[in-house]
Amino acid sequence: MRATVIHAPGDIRVEDAPEPKILKSTDAIIRTVATCVCGSDLWPYRGLEPIGDPHPMGHEYVGIVEEVGSEVGNVKPGQFVVGSFATSDNTCANCKKGWQSSCLNREFMGTCQAEYVRIPNAHGTLVATDEHPSGELVPSLLAVSDVMGTGWYAALAAEVKPGSTAVVVGDGAVGLCGVIAAKELGAERIIAMSRHESRQKLALEFGATDIVSERGEEGIARIKDLTGGIGADSVLECVGTSQSMSQALHSARPGGNVGFVGVPHEVAVDGQELFFSQVGLRGGPAPVRRYLPDLIDRVLSGHINPGKVFDLTLPLEQVAEGYKAMDERRAIKALLTP
Amino acid sequence: MRATVIHAPGDIRVEDAPEPKILKSTDAIIRTVATCVCGSDLWPYRGLEPIGDPHPMGHEYVGIVEEVGSEVGNVKPGQFVVGSFATSDNTCANCKKGWQSSCLNREFMGTCQAEYVRIPNAHGTLVATDEHPSGELVPSLLAVSDVMGTGWYAALAAEVKPGSTAVVVGDGAVGLCGVIAAKELGAERIIAMSRHESRQKLALEFGATDIVSERGEEGIARIKDLTGGIGADSVLECVGTSQSMSQALHSARPGGNVGFVGVPHEVAVDGQELFFSQVGLRGGPAPVRRYLPDLIDRVLSGHINPGKVFDLTLPLEQVAEGYKAMDERRAIKALLTP
Repeated sequence: MRATVIHAPGDIRVEDAPEPKILKSTDAIIRTVATCVCGSDLWPYRGLEPIGDPHPMGHEYVGIVEEVGSEVGNVKPGQFVVGSFATSDNTCANCKKGWQSSCLNREFMGTCQAEYVRIPNAHGTLVATDEHPSGELVPSLLAVSDVMGTGWYAALAAEVKPGSTAVVVGDGAVGLCGVIAAKELGAERIIAMSRHESRQKLALEFGATDIVSERGEEGIARIKDLTGGIGADSVLECVGTSQSMSQALHSARPGGNVGFVGVPHEVAVDGQELFFSQVGLRGGPAPVRRYLPDLIDRVLSGHINPGKVFDLTLPLEQVAEGYKAMDERRAIKALLTP
Repeated sequence: MRATVIHAPGDIRVEDAPEPKILKSTDAIIRTVATCVCGSDLWPYRGLEPIGDPHPMGHEYVGIVEEVGSEVGNVKPGQFVVGSFATSDNTCANCKKGWQSSCLNREFMGTCQAEYVRIPNAHGTLVATDEHPSGELVPSLLAVSDVMGTGWYAALAAEVKPGSTAVVVGDGAVGLCGVIAAKELGAERIIAMSRHESRQKLALEFGATDIVSERGEEGIARIKDLTGGIGADSVLECVGTSQSMSQALHSARPGGNVGFVGVPHEVAVDGQELFFSQVGLRGGPAPVRRYLPDLIDRVLSGHINPGKVFDLTLPLEQVAEGYKAMDERRAIKALLTP
């Protein structure tokens, strides 16, 4: 089969690779219908994370089940399935409490930009749709497997409630999905921080009520202006840098909450500053599995359309262009079709 | 009048000082019935916080109203009142949302170890009891003005709910009050981390179900053992050091919460570690004003007795011995009577 391999910063290739096989009785093999490039894939691509030996890439996927291990009873060959970037058995103590992304048997996906993928913990990870969805729904279902699920978690971690004021820091695919989530959860005012016209436009389409293009001190001042001088109830931090975290913490009111879902890179939070801010802080890899049935329903009913974050669709063979376009911010998110 | 002044680390004296006067129309003057020494007072006493010029000390108080400014309508001379270490107008945007300790007009108390005290924002800070309480209730009402209110906030910030498992890190007065709070809020299992027999005893009396005397890696392992391998739902961090914060974060399960109320000293939280822990974190000065009516009721009805944390009672003139006894951990908390 054809599969994506990263060799060095900036060096992404599609190569021949052996098709994956069932290794454990809880595995499944899927034929990828669509996969994509994640903002977090850009960290190694940009040389900001070590790569080590050449290795496969990709953790977002929807596909058709090809084969299942003997313990996989929830899905069967031929079904269209959505999963999560973090696999889970859905039965351990953490899963039972709804924190499947901290499953005691978790394995992170990392080989999805390929024609076929082995899904560990398939029994607790994959959710099948009743029918094969129409092609136009595929991008949104793909988004659910990571960015939409992650935006949803950001909004929940930030405790968005009906009537809340929410700020979204970051206008990447996750931030934009965070706008959808904030709206679905009933936020009355949604302030998207963005300096890019096309992303501002999509944010407004997704439900943002205000756009703030300033950053740093000026950005914080604008947020305070828009929130009665005290800051927002909920802030979704969807970047993962020291600057974005600071922006988020200073944009929340005392008693407010920051949900942070960008994997932090060289971020340290000062204890005393956090203390006196009285801001609640929760982050992590989103427990997408918990949200899958609900989010799939919202997509299939046409209620949300997070697939719009894919503004570039390429054949898998052109994956390198997908990375390049996202790196250069020419594309929000690139969808790949094997 | 007689008032406490800190001159240098270890040098606390009671001196003659002018009686306080009404400075603003929202002030009140109270005659102190009881005051006390706080764990946080030990930071400058131990030379761990700069002292600068000699200055008064103390932020915990109950007393009798002597005089009120023209805008103070909620209490009147002759009434017994309980307040908070953080004063609040109780009308600003933060106060309205219940975050009075971040009141836009907040002034922290700092002159309470004295015979008379000026209370700024008295109109939004003081709560009077219907009658003068009996002397045996005074210690518990005094506790409500800070340590009990702070323990209560720690438990709420840690999201203790009926049936929760809670861990309390720190066996000082706040930690012990945190045990009371966790019990009142319905925690099923309350694990107190303590190495001191007298404090372990009080923790058990207050409702702790388990005592863990180990710390660090061993302490974390013990907590995991007691919580099905994943950690506690709620952790109350009541110390404020880097070690205690680490202990707290590693004692909570993914999706669990840490409420931290010890003012952090040289604490930095690693963003990536917090991210993958999926632990929610909220701290700060407790919004005691929000809890005062409820906590006063619980004390007056005999439902809780946080005054037991005072295991040393001294006349104000012997304040130096109060600090010394607490510094040497001979006393949990020293009550002072002017």
